[in-house]
Amino acid sequence: MSVSRASVHPVETPPLQTEAANVPRVRMKDIQGMPGTISSLFLRFAQFVFASIALSVMASTSDFSSVTAFCYFVAAAGLQILWSFSLGILDIYALLVGRSLQNQRIVSFFSIGDGVTSTLMFAAACASAGITVLIGNDLGVCAQNHCTEFETATTMSFLTWFASIPSFVLNFWSLSSQCRCVPA
Amino acid sequence: MSVSRASVHPVETPPLQTEAANVPRVRMKDIQGMPGTISSLFLRFAQFVFASIALSVMASTSDFSSVTAFCYFVAAAGLQILWSFSLGILDIYALLVGRSLQNQRIVSFFSIGDGVTSTLMFAAACASAGITVLIGNDLGVCAQNHCTEFETATTMSFLTWFASIPSFVLNFWSLSSQCRCVPA
Repeated sequence: MSVSRASVHPVETPPLQTEAANVPRVRMKDIQGMPGTISSLFLRFAQFVFASIALSVMASTSDFSSVTAFCYFVAAAGLQILWSFSLGILDIYALLVGRSLQNQRIVSFFSIGDGVTSTLMFAAACASAGITVLIGNDLGVCAQNHCTEFETATTMSFLTWFASIPSFVLNFWSLSSQCRCVPA
Repeated sequence: MSVSRASVHPVETPPLQTEAANVPRVRMKDIQGMPGTISSLFLRFAQFVFASIALSVMASTSDFSSVTAFCYFVAAAGLQILWSFSLGILDIYALLVGRSLQNQRIVSFFSIGDGVTSTLMFAAACASAGITVLIGNDLGVCAQNHCTEFETATTMSFLTWFASIPSFVLNFWSLSSQCRCVPA
């Protein structure tokens, strides 16, 4: 280290406080569950599996297409499968190559995508649950309908939603904590 | 201002960098829509009005109690009315007294409350929408049911949800940006 010392006034001067030093530099913290981590991959896998079961069980009933809410359910589950599969592949790539996916643009995109898919899946789950309870409990016409299949598909869609909530919350949290750090 | 100068070595020493000065102090930014602002009051008022209309219209039908999803709808709308009314009163108090409601504990509480009530309201809206579409479009039995009332109540519950989303997102955003400012 080269240090210059004044020959006339040998006073140790403390480091200067420049303006740049006062601005807090903020980085994204690596949290398990965020893109490019093992937990994120696990969550994507769980979403993919639950959504796939939900779609398969619902599509296996012969009369799902006669109910609008069940058609929407199949579409929402399909979208969730595609989204979770794509992001799972991206997580595997990031883990294998050792590349960080935690920059603002990627996290914004993941956050919006997770928000949209999980909201659609939750809406489908609730609509399906409403109709299943109506058929099974209120009208008691399970004999003419596939109540067990509808119940299984609804349960799986709620599990998909539960698995997608941590992904969304963690992405949104890290996004907002990166953007709005206001020094007093 | 009293400034002491050394008589032997009249060297201007820059201010010392203490450890405390290096820690970034973060404050909450005042954003319209956050608790204690006019926009927040407006959002609470909108939630209250929409939820009240939804509950009144649904409760005015004679047979809503025979459908489990509609009973849940009335309960969720009731909870939303209570929550929005309480927070509206708190906003009015904060605006009149000029007190800021933007500290971490209050915002955490509001954020969780908004998250829970808006999720319950959205679930009720989706379940109700699923059943309304089933009765009206798929089965075509509107003559024996109150389709118009169910549709109105469902629309109002979605409007309630739309009005409660900004409250939740802004509270959650400000909460996360306050907590996780990590200096590099």
